[in-house]
Amino acid sequence: MLRTPEQYVESLRDGRVVYQDGERVKDIPTRYRHSVERAASEFYVSSHPDHRALFSMIEDGEEVSFAFKIPETGEDLQRRREILLTLGQLGAGGSRLTGIDGLNGVAYGTHKVDAALGTHYVESMAKYRAWCKKNDPSICAAVSDPKGHRALHAEDPRQAHKDFYVRISDRPRDGIVITGCKLHISEAIISNELIVLPSRNHDEPGKDYAVACAVPCNAKGVTFIGTAGAAGGGHPMIIFDKVFVPWERVFLAGEWQFSREVATSFARYHRLTAATYKTAQLDALAGLAMLMAEYNGLTRATRIQDMLGWFAMYATIPEALGRAAALSGIVDPETGQARPNAVYTNCAKYWFASQWHEAMKYLQDIAGGIAATMPSMKDWENPATRPYLEKYLQGDARFPAEERIRAINAVIQMGSTFGGVLSIHAEGSLATQKMVLLQQADWERYKAAAKHMMGIRTDHPEFKGRPLPGESPWKMPESMLKH
Amino acid sequence: MLRTPEQYVESLRDGRVVYQDGERVKDIPTRYRHSVERAASEFYVSSHPDHRALFSMIEDGEEVSFAFKIPETGEDLQRRREILLTLGQLGAGGSRLTGIDGLNGVAYGTHKVDAALGTHYVESMAKYRAWCKKNDPSICAAVSDPKGHRALHAEDPRQAHKDFYVRISDRPRDGIVITGCKLHISEAIISNELIVLPSRNHDEPGKDYAVACAVPCNAKGVTFIGTAGAAGGGHPMIIFDKVFVPWERVFLAGEWQFSREVATSFARYHRLTAATYKTAQLDALAGLAMLMAEYNGLTRATRIQDMLGWFAMYATIPEALGRAAALSGIVDPETGQARPNAVYTNCAKYWFASQWHEAMKYLQDIAGGIAATMPSMKDWENPATRPYLEKYLQGDARFPAEERIRAINAVIQMGSTFGGVLSIHAEGSLATQKMVLLQQADWERYKAAAKHMMGIRTDHPEFKGRPLPGESPWKMPESMLKH
Amino acid sequence: MLRTPEQYVESLRDGRVVYQDGERVKDIPTRYRHSVERAASEFYVSSHPDHRALFSMIEDGEEVSFAFKIPETGEDLQRRREILLTLGQLGAGGSRLTGIDGLNGVAYGTHKVDAALGTHYVESMAKYRAWCKKNDPSICAAVSDPKGHRALHAEDPRQAHKDFYVRISDRPRDGIVITGCKLHISEAIISNELIVLPSRNHDEPGKDYAVACAVPCNAKGVTFIGTAGAAGGGHPMIIFDKVFVPWERVFLAGEWQFSREVATSFARYHRLTAATYKTAQLDALAGLAMLMAEYNGLTRATRIQDMLGWFAMYATIPEALGRAAALSGIVDPETGQARPNAVYTNCAKYWFASQWHEAMKYLQDIAGGIAATMPSMKDWENPATRPYLEKYLQGDARFPAEERIRAINAVIQMGSTFGGVLSIHAEGSLATQKMVLLQQADWERYKAAAKHMMGIRTDHPEFKGRPLPGESPWKMPESMLKH
Amino acid sequence: MLRTPEQYVESLRDGRVVYQDGERVKDIPTRYRHSVERAASEFYVSSHPDHRALFSMIEDGEEVSFAFKIPETGEDLQRRREILLTLGQLGAGGSRLTGIDGLNGVAYGTHKVDAALGTHYVESMAKYRAWCKKNDPSICAAVSDPKGHRALHAEDPRQAHKDFYVRISDRPRDGIVITGCKLHISEAIISNELIVLPSRNHDEPGKDYAVACAVPCNAKGVTFIGTAGAAGGGHPMIIFDKVFVPWERVFLAGEWQFSREVATSFARYHRLTAATYKTAQLDALAGLAMLMAEYNGLTRATRIQDMLGWFAMYATIPEALGRAAALSGIVDPETGQARPNAVYTNCAKYWFASQWHEAMKYLQDIAGGIAATMPSMKDWENPATRPYLEKYLQGDARFPAEERIRAINAVIQMGSTFGGVLSIHAEGSLATQKMVLLQQADWERYKAAAKHMMGIRTDHPEFKGRPLPGESPWKMPESMLKH
Repeated sequence: MLRTPEQYVESLRDGRVVYQDGERVKDIPTRYRHSVERAASEFYVSSHPDHRALFSMIEDGEEVSFAFKIPETGEDLQRRREILLTLGQLGAGGSRLTGIDGLNGVAYGTHKVDAALGTHYVESMAKYRAWCKKNDPSICAAVSDPKGHRALHAEDPRQAHKDFYVRISDRPRDGIVITGCKLHISEAIISNELIVLPSRNHDEPGKDYAVACAVPCNAKGVTFIGTAGAAGGGHPMIIFDKVFVPWERVFLAGEWQFSREVATSFARYHRLTAATYKTAQLDALAGLAMLMAEYNGLTRATRIQDMLGWFAMYATIPEALGRAAALSGIVDPETGQARPNAVYTNCAKYWFASQWHEAMKYLQDIAGGIAATMPSMKDWENPATRPYLEKYLQGDARFPAEERIRAINAVIQMGSTFGGVLSIHAEGSLATQKMVLLQQADWERYKAAAKHMMGIRTDHPEFKGRPLPGESPWKMPESMLKH
Repeated sequence: MLRTPEQYVESLRDGRVVYQDGERVKDIPTRYRHSVERAASEFYVSSHPDHRALFSMIEDGEEVSFAFKIPETGEDLQRRREILLTLGQLGAGGSRLTGIDGLNGVAYGTHKVDAALGTHYVESMAKYRAWCKKNDPSICAAVSDPKGHRALHAEDPRQAHKDFYVRISDRPRDGIVITGCKLHISEAIISNELIVLPSRNHDEPGKDYAVACAVPCNAKGVTFIGTAGAAGGGHPMIIFDKVFVPWERVFLAGEWQFSREVATSFARYHRLTAATYKTAQLDALAGLAMLMAEYNGLTRATRIQDMLGWFAMYATIPEALGRAAALSGIVDPETGQARPNAVYTNCAKYWFASQWHEAMKYLQDIAGGIAATMPSMKDWENPATRPYLEKYLQGDARFPAEERIRAINAVIQMGSTFGGVLSIHAEGSLATQKMVLLQQADWERYKAAAKHMMGIRTDHPEFKGRPLPGESPWKMPESMLKH
Repeated sequence: MLRTPEQYVESLRDGRVVYQDGERVKDIPTRYRHSVERAASEFYVSSHPDHRALFSMIEDGEEVSFAFKIPETGEDLQRRREILLTLGQLGAGGSRLTGIDGLNGVAYGTHKVDAALGTHYVESMAKYRAWCKKNDPSICAAVSDPKGHRALHAEDPRQAHKDFYVRISDRPRDGIVITGCKLHISEAIISNELIVLPSRNHDEPGKDYAVACAVPCNAKGVTFIGTAGAAGGGHPMIIFDKVFVPWERVFLAGEWQFSREVATSFARYHRLTAATYKTAQLDALAGLAMLMAEYNGLTRATRIQDMLGWFAMYATIPEALGRAAALSGIVDPETGQARPNAVYTNCAKYWFASQWHEAMKYLQDIAGGIAATMPSMKDWENPATRPYLEKYLQGDARFPAEERIRAINAVIQMGSTFGGVLSIHAEGSLATQKMVLLQQADWERYKAAAKHMMGIRTDHPEFKGRPLPGESPWKMPESMLKH
Repeated sequence: MLRTPEQYVESLRDGRVVYQDGERVKDIPTRYRHSVERAASEFYVSSHPDHRALFSMIEDGEEVSFAFKIPETGEDLQRRREILLTLGQLGAGGSRLTGIDGLNGVAYGTHKVDAALGTHYVESMAKYRAWCKKNDPSICAAVSDPKGHRALHAEDPRQAHKDFYVRISDRPRDGIVITGCKLHISEAIISNELIVLPSRNHDEPGKDYAVACAVPCNAKGVTFIGTAGAAGGGHPMIIFDKVFVPWERVFLAGEWQFSREVATSFARYHRLTAATYKTAQLDALAGLAMLMAEYNGLTRATRIQDMLGWFAMYATIPEALGRAAALSGIVDPETGQARPNAVYTNCAKYWFASQWHEAMKYLQDIAGGIAATMPSMKDWENPATRPYLEKYLQGDARFPAEERIRAINAVIQMGSTFGGVLSIHAEGSLATQKMVLLQQADWERYKAAAKHMMGIRTDHPEFKGRPLPGESPWKMPESMLKH
């Protein structure tokens, strides 16, 4: 089934408990109108003749959202990228940005757990996926835990309490009860379903923290606390206070050996999503830098030109890597699931995150001091002061002052701590990317290349027969030399 | 005379025209209470027995502020540094941070102009300084112009209008009339006097832009527009709409050849001020990084330790350079004025400004994603949600959650665009520092050192007699060798 | 025709004038044996059954080298990449690394000149290409000029002489005479043909410097001076002392308006070549870093792991960009020539060049001080000292000391100035890449993205219909809100 | 006593065992003539009337070298700096660059060991120092061990053997016997005495590795193996093959608890030495960059100017920090020894080492491709080729080609792996400096500053009484407000 936007809007009126800026939210669609419209538009777009072929598919005679298809090829991954790009272009969506990655990541994990331990999570997951196809929910991955003391395990008695990671706090016969908190859960407040999954590995003593499951946003015990001042609720904390989850919605429940696998499996999908949506953002960033340079009359200044060239590179690299990561996605032989190439996605994520602050430095350098001292837009509206702003905040005479003022305000907004922290921490910290690159790169090939250069033969298939440096396929016979 | 804080407060009620966030400000001390108190405290402190010996001096039997003394030795510069550090420690001051540098910078310039062109600005400046000593005003340098199209001269007809740099728009008999705007003028709204001076060189066709003078904040035609949302008015735009300035307050009026000299002379003083106040800020930044690491339980993680070591270096270098710049200040033989060592001050400024964004990256990396998703402090006050925040936003159990939350909010505030732009653009952009280093470093000595290394003798006094590499003061006689 | 390696070797005995390390070289194949063998192997490989299908093609019933085919599709560019990678793997080739790019770059230029100015260079080029197909020469692009004073034009009288750029010094009836010097011409000494082309734009007064032509290595007046100590002659200077070039080998002769076009057209091809061969080199570099870490027992150290993760990224990015640049090559509608995507190639070049020194820092950090203090391999061969080296220069007991010693020597060699300068300056300096990125990136699209974000509608086709931020394709009817 | 240069030269003919480039060295002064002359010149200079007052002092009526004085004040440290700078300027010295730091570092450690464990090393050290004053030896610190597998302790059975760190291999009645190897021991071959000391901490099972002692260069069992190709023997490996050391020359022998203390105590002195000699080197580097820019005609190019400005900063910061480190040296109350400020010295070392490769990148960028392709100086001497080099390797016409060629060769030499590794690893790796900064910076003060900023009162003496942000020393009475 494909839901209508109206159905989606009404689905948010389910009694969920949400706090925002110190107050209980009475009606979600009203309080977060714009974000809800944006999310609702995904349903509108999906059924729209222009996009229906991309967004939906027919399965067993039923039209369902492509989002819920198990990716089986690189092309499936690339189609997912195109859906995300289309939504971005249309100013639609958001409420499935992380959830589909969560679903596919957890699904992959269920195969591995079942295969190793004889559990039956694959079946539950298949049923849940079928339910999703049928009900077309908004869906959101709930991953990050508050962690408390980062160097201590979840169960360490030196932690202030046991709930810094979501855990199974009770195991009644028909399901599990979970307690804890998830942080930074983008779009969670306007979603229908939360795919809860572990954020890291846990050892045997911490097996209760190895938990993955699906929880409706209005489940008893769930409380959302929105990000301060964020129009759409931002990236809320979600409190799980003894939330009951029936077995058919549980996908991991104590199999601690697979905690990391589920976490990284999600991340593998999600870093491709990130590389995809960041591309659009970095295009706009490069453009903003150029506009500021134009408004300020700086496009002929060498230093500025160098920065602009750099911005083009900054934007281009993740785009090339994102596409390569999808198209060279690897199909897991056991599960049949296609997964993005982890080296490319992690390069993309590390690249844009590690250079973000440099980009802001350049942008602010181009924009000038006014990005620290800009008067209020209310002064713009005040006829007593507007002429002054119009006169003195103009740059190059060929552009209206208002455009420059909008650009300055965009620079101010982009450079906030939010922007910096988002680039670093969303989809895993910088350290994580470096670790994944360390684990996933083809070191045997790299080392064989190095040994080859050092003049040492190796058994690596790609280098086995190759002449070493100083050798050549063809040797000059002594008779051809002249001494 | 030393004014009392009460006198200072009352002096701000002089009819000045100030707009803030879209509205005309009715009463300065009331609207900007905290900033005014902070500034007023400088007068309180100056007369306080604990600090009087540092802040004031006796001249001609009269006690006057040391701020108005012409610096004549490195020790005078260092005493100025100590005054600034003391004010910083006491949470006082602000309203003279730039003005004294403006005064000394312009004063230096008047000597050069008079000597070259036979003008009489030195005398006017001496009188104005005497007036300052007598009236003890708050004083503020008004330097940055809006610039319009950066690549065009002020007078270029392709500029949208002629007023992108403050200019002499009329020359009645008894003074000059100035028109234009100055931007980013920190603390200007709560000051008494504006020392207007050029922000760059101007050529002969732009000689009307070569203007320096002192303007009272309530002069007819002066309008302030405060920075959006800034508690103390921030760093306002100041509009000069045909403001009359009598000759005795004019220190440059068309001598375009000295426009740059006056600008850089101010900057030379002001970069030392910057290196001084930044030291305190960077100490707090280093501490904040360590606190975040402690709250998060990360002090044993190698990556974090490396960042912390870096923060210590980040804070230490400007401190060492600032001190060196004052103590090795150079006394100008013609004017007798001591000026800070420009190489040290510009190294200090370039260092902290060029690394600020890297520092923010590290700080945000340590702080974690919560610096992007922090709930409102109103949720902290709401008994329905506070227990959740208290429970889940705690880190290491040994520290209260509230401390960590305060630190997170400090991280958020510090990382704003304002912080970044301030570090880059206040006291001159990164490009400026590199240019000053290029102009002021002792290249003849550097080149002589290089030639010496290359085996080429030079006439440089420090290298003239030195043995070249491969030579030695003492040579082994052949008879001592054994072949 | 496909030449045999023997034919190639004999072709180098043509009387060419070569100096190396202070002496005239008597016999090229003997003096530069290894490099000649390596280059000769390209001919061996081209005819080898394993590779013939890749390296050659049938044209008019004749088998000719694919190298001389005009690239007409992205696949042609990618096939060229595969040829280069295969040669690299086999330790063969070198003598056509730059020449084919020169040929294609100049060929593209001839079309543009003829179209604009009615000249007839296309025809000459077609004949020359046919001659190449028939004679299968080694071929080398001669581009860089010595430049003299970089800030002055070639013809500026303040230059020490007129020959800092190769120029037409005479114009007899049947051709041109060229004089000057080309620098850094890799593999030139063991090539057959030099494709001379301009290194930069020239204005009308410098029209004699706008010259492109093909010169045999043994032409009268040509002198090679090899790089100091380089086994294969390195990247020699080539002196052109009144060298006559007949008209049929001239492709530009004074059309100064196209000087830059020819230079950048070459560079566009050549940066793809660079991105291709660098990929192999960076693989080996990443492997060397890992091997050093293993030998030193450092693979579990966080700092080292971070560096290793970085090396994987360093190697991956140019590979992804190189492939994308070939496959998204752009076919010029007028000439039918396929040219690599310049944004991707310049990103690749800038990335590896700008990070090379950082890579060396990391590599040396991992390797340790021994890379500065390594005893001679003669001490390794000396039985009196070898046991000490074997004992004390071992690292992890699982690897033989000799492997570690080889790795250390590889680190020493890789870190030389040669390596650094090659990465920066080969295929154009860092500044060039930034300029090309500035010129070639799709700024109209970037700016439209930025304006969209700023809430300004644009006519850009990709953004024209898009809802602005704050708009959505679907809007909630007022009736659905609850206030 | 002050030795004569002749006495020093003869002292090197003591039968020591030295290998260089595969051969046993027969006569040290003859084989390493230049380095020996340079070192001998220190003795010449010390007695020279121009420098005697700086280099020597009178103690008990005897004139002795100031080098052997225990530093007791910051001025003593600064005098040591001046001695080093003078030697550098005169092209003299080298053989005491590390040894004096070793002596003072170990001496400090002996106090700590004796105080804690009741040993009697202070007495031995005092006698040894007296012997030094009397005999005026060249003296050299032997610190770095080969380490084997870096992650394993010296005594770990997984190490290939037990001798990767110098250890006490036997304890006869009258002394100790040491076995092992020290690496990178600059100037060791032309020294008289080796001050052996541990390079790191060792735990109790590794107590035999906690050894410090003085060993003459000709002691039985000592073998030197010079750095490959290094004119002066470079930074040799030293093999200790069962070397007997009598008790009076032993300063640590198993007191593993103090192994780290002795190592870091040396490092503390030695990093000041490094900051001192690097200053001279960085001056020459900055000059070389400027000369290359001048020769190439690039001094007006913005990018190059920015690099030159950066070079001035690069050279200035260590100089300011080095001076500050000496003058703010800390006198240890127990031993009376003055020690350099560790924060400043480690900032200096980290700064120049972490930026060295960036400096090389800039230098090579300025120099151009010729630094990779320079012909041999033998081509310069060959009349057949010299005119070509003279003509084409000239830059700006105002400078002779030969100067430019020398500069290019200096660029080549400076950029070698040796230069990079020396900057990183000499005086401790980058990681070490970051760790020392972490340990030595005044974090309590930094944290108090941060808490103050966060609005939290602390007991830190510097912040205790200070008004918090938002407070002021002076508060406006309500009566002064106007609402």
